[in-house]
Amino acid sequence: MKRGVLFIISGPSGVGKGTVAKALLEGANGSMVFSVSATTRAPRPGEVHGREYFFLTDEEFDRMIDAGEFLEYMKVFGRNNYGTPRKYVEEQLEAGRDVLLDIDVNGAMKVKENCPDAVALMLAPPSMKELRRRLETRGTEEQPVIERRLAEAASELSRMGEYDYVVVNDDLDAAIAQCRCVLESAKLTPAYCAEFVSNLIKEDL
Amino acid sequence: MKRGVLFIISGPSGVGKGTVAKALLEGANGSMVFSVSATTRAPRPGEVHGREYFFLTDEEFDRMIDAGEFLEYMKVFGRNNYGTPRKYVEEQLEAGRDVLLDIDVNGAMKVKENCPDAVALMLAPPSMKELRRRLETRGTEEQPVIERRLAEAASELSRMGEYDYVVVNDDLDAAIAQCRCVLESAKLTPAYCAEFVSNLIKEDL
Repeated sequence: MKRGVLFIISGPSGVGKGTVAKALLEGANGSMVFSVSATTRAPRPGEVHGREYFFLTDEEFDRMIDAGEFLEYMKVFGRNNYGTPRKYVEEQLEAGRDVLLDIDVNGAMKVKENCPDAVALMLAPPSMKELRRRLETRGTEEQPVIERRLAEAASELSRMGEYDYVVVNDDLDAAIAQCRCVLESAKLTPAYCAEFVSNLIKEDL
Repeated sequence: MKRGVLFIISGPSGVGKGTVAKALLEGANGSMVFSVSATTRAPRPGEVHGREYFFLTDEEFDRMIDAGEFLEYMKVFGRNNYGTPRKYVEEQLEAGRDVLLDIDVNGAMKVKENCPDAVALMLAPPSMKELRRRLETRGTEEQPVIERRLAEAASELSRMGEYDYVVVNDDLDAAIAQCRCVLESAKLTPAYCAEFVSNLIKEDL
């Protein structure tokens, strides 16, 4: 059983990250799962513990922080907390499944620190103008919110250089194919193939 | 115009490297070229200077060594010399074409030293047993030669860990697809996309 790959995807609001992530998962036929986050917010109707989120009390969340059980977490006083439990990710990778982690730049870099084998990909818009168009077209946010999202996007995108890969979501199908390619390549490194490599070398001629 | 990628492929005799390289070139529709080596051996009938090889005198070859004009070279006293001229590779990359370089482990590592952006891929057999079968099946070599090739293969393959990628040539079409994926991924790194990245960040919101 080959270990899965931890596949981090970041990208600004409006870039189409959700659509790409969904396509990757659906195309993976069970060989990839979404990372399940932990949160201190209350479950909404229909949400299941361990499926949408691991719902924790503040005390449980703090205990996990102290025990080093998060790959990354975000704790803001007076707000709901979110974190990525290491155990769930580790179990899935060990079972040979790739784990998709949709997370912001700070979270992504924290996870890379904790899991140097993780592959971090930034999904970028073809242009800021196009990102604005997408945010305005979906019509779910007021103009001031859109302006704030764009400023946040510029800030996130300015850190693209910290990622392993940058995929431009211009044509959706092409972007999905490129993400798949990146994931496939990650499985072709000597480190990833270490067992095969060492067996081949040990073989009698 | 985006710069091309220098794509190094190594692999033991019998692994099917020629077939894979040919398929990559043919599928690239002119966006990839073979690196043309320099040699001091005499041209054979039909060989064209600058196409099969750059045919050089010993003096010309030595001058290029002294001038640092080789990405790598091999000089063995009393034998024909071979080298990879930097200029040809550089011109092709600048013109936006990928350059395929079929070379042994020592040469590959030398080129990586000189071109850190080059992508080095080792094509490996599924097993040494299968490699033996392939060498024996093609029937072009005597048994002692096959034994020597196998020993050389084991030695080359023991250095797989120095490569960026390992592709196992079990199913030919799968191996070709994986090589293409590796090449595509190499064009998705932030360094490769630096111009796009910097333009995006400079855009007005």
